[in-house]
Amino acid sequence: MRLHQIGELKLLKEVRERFSSTSKEDRSIIVGIGDDAAVIAPQKERIIVTTDMMNEGIHFDLSYTSPFHLGFKLMSVNVSDIMAMGGQPMYLFLNLSMKKDTEEEFFWRFYDGVSSAMDIYGVKLLGGDMSAAENDMVISATVIGQADEIVTRGGASVGDKIYITSTLGDSACGLALLQRLTDESRYRVKGYEFRVKSKKQKKKDEKALSLTHNSKLLTLNWSIAEPLIARHLMPVARDSNELTNHATSMIDISDGLFVDLSRICDECNVGAVVYSESIPLSKEMQYAADIMGLDPFMLATSGGEDYELLFTAANFPESTYNKSHNIKVSCIGHIVEKKRVVIDKTGRKSALKVKGYQHFGSQG
Amino acid sequence: MRLHQIGELKLLKEVRERFSSTSKEDRSIIVGIGDDAAVIAPQKERIIVTTDMMNEGIHFDLSYTSPFHLGFKLMSVNVSDIMAMGGQPMYLFLNLSMKKDTEEEFFWRFYDGVSSAMDIYGVKLLGGDMSAAENDMVISATVIGQADEIVTRGGASVGDKIYITSTLGDSACGLALLQRLTDESRYRVKGYEFRVKSKKQKKKDEKALSLTHNSKLLTLNWSIAEPLIARHLMPVARDSNELTNHATSMIDISDGLFVDLSRICDECNVGAVVYSESIPLSKEMQYAADIMGLDPFMLATSGGEDYELLFTAANFPESTYNKSHNIKVSCIGHIVEKKRVVIDKTGRKSALKVKGYQHFGSQG
Repeated sequence: MRLHQIGELKLLKEVRERFSSTSKEDRSIIVGIGDDAAVIAPQKERIIVTTDMMNEGIHFDLSYTSPFHLGFKLMSVNVSDIMAMGGQPMYLFLNLSMKKDTEEEFFWRFYDGVSSAMDIYGVKLLGGDMSAAENDMVISATVIGQADEIVTRGGASVGDKIYITSTLGDSACGLALLQRLTDESRYRVKGYEFRVKSKKQKKKDEKALSLTHNSKLLTLNWSIAEPLIARHLMPVARDSNELTNHATSMIDISDGLFVDLSRICDECNVGAVVYSESIPLSKEMQYAADIMGLDPFMLATSGGEDYELLFTAANFPESTYNKSHNIKVSCIGHIVEKKRVVIDKTGRKSALKVKGYQHFGSQG
Repeated sequence: MRLHQIGELKLLKEVRERFSSTSKEDRSIIVGIGDDAAVIAPQKERIIVTTDMMNEGIHFDLSYTSPFHLGFKLMSVNVSDIMAMGGQPMYLFLNLSMKKDTEEEFFWRFYDGVSSAMDIYGVKLLGGDMSAAENDMVISATVIGQADEIVTRGGASVGDKIYITSTLGDSACGLALLQRLTDESRYRVKGYEFRVKSKKQKKKDEKALSLTHNSKLLTLNWSIAEPLIARHLMPVARDSNELTNHATSMIDISDGLFVDLSRICDECNVGAVVYSESIPLSKEMQYAADIMGLDPFMLATSGGEDYELLFTAANFPESTYNKSHNIKVSCIGHIVEKKRVVIDKTGRKSALKVKGYQHFGSQG
């Protein structure tokens, strides 16, 4: 059955039935999904609000992205912004604009992806809107979080060290892989629920992926491709809970390390020195970039969509932290007065150049 | 200059510069536009959140709708939901998806419309997102309000009277007019800022509009057309401030009187009797409907997009209220146990039929 055969009211009713029960247990939710607006009784001093939109053809390609991936990613992108303020994500509002002839199955698989992410982040769906689209699918979410104390982009000072969670460039490398996949491999990736299936199945069970590069057919082991593609299609937002006590400023990497670090510098009116050798790169990314003829350093610094947390702190206890956490923290440089430079392993300095993605831009 | 020649970062910077100053005066705004997320320190016990999306080709037609109208309407549609909960609108988040070759002028006129509505409602812009669209323009807004006490859809009980603000069907009639306008009249309407210009110019200064109906060319005086078209292109949300003390339930009319009244009935598990003669109709709507061969009763009960407030109350002092308010309140019926009927002037009863607009639906 297609959406136009079902009708908006029936779909809204079913969404409400599916998601309203979880709200009833939460005392902070006075009115959940289904009224003119949702009503919340805040439990903490600060309410944190973010909203992000994803457009078909711009942010996602349905030839390798499933509705499950999409729902999950939309959530993570928004939750990541809440985490980057030092907040705890709480409530979700969804706006969906889908083509009239969308299959009902697609619609509900999208909600499965959203729901899977809601469980991970402890977020409740409280409302939203849906309508028909003439052409492309557009989805947006607003996530509201809470905190007693927040971390802005504005608190870095000279002498602070610069830290990053996990590794950079995996998402951009995953995207580059996806764009080069053969039709058969694309189809297989699209049917894969990364974070869900990887628990059940051993990675080695999966066949290698095939891709085309310079008119040659290459193969890449699933164990190398999987973490990269997963990071692009179904990123998980990093938990900032134990970072906020130390962080003087924080931002999540959405447009690329150098763009987002420049934002902190702009906000704080300071400079930054980054040691290129300290930028954490996964071995999977370096291997895959190599076979595609891409520069791992470029992917890591200008790739974007990493959704890692970039923060500054006078002295973050990274070795202690890293012993007890799966997601490691690395120091990649420090804050200085004015200059913005990258220093490579030979000691050569170059300007920290901003090459992130701009939606409208030809000058990005 | 077109948006792709300017770039997202520059546009975001300019939006931020334009709107950040107003946030600085507001102590409840801890972090305004420009960080990963906005941060609010709530001043009242309840936070109210709503979000609505508008799609080109579905919700609006750029052949007679200007970007100014659009920005204004997007605000009103969302503010109306906050009002319908008995809340005070406070903060705005905008998601814009515009075509790459959109003229910069269009972009800023959209913000002028948003800004004009922000002034009327006392709302501050705290964040959002913008991206390029391949085809249609899609805009969405999230408005956050506050209240000490709220009014849901769920409090109506048997014996309560049913009230409506102002008149119904004007917006649907305005839409019917717009769809029939000649190209010259369409162009003129598109250049008109209804609520802004009408203060400066006398209505009689404007020429009559030309429209085509059944292959005949008709004219309609501007003084008749203006309030109908204004209600459709630039609706103003009704203030619920002095209604909330009396209201047992409340909803705003977005999908048509009968659809929205049915929602209250569903929520409260009650019925309703509506007297068709009591439904308030403007003389302009009745006149214009007549020349277009449309049924004023159908426009008023199933037209939608009225953004009037529908509420129930044991006994609302409407005559006292109406003496001191420009926007009048009318009683149109009462709540009963089960049946949902309309009674006409001859006393004939008919079932209250739901014929609202459904985005995906063929069964609406």
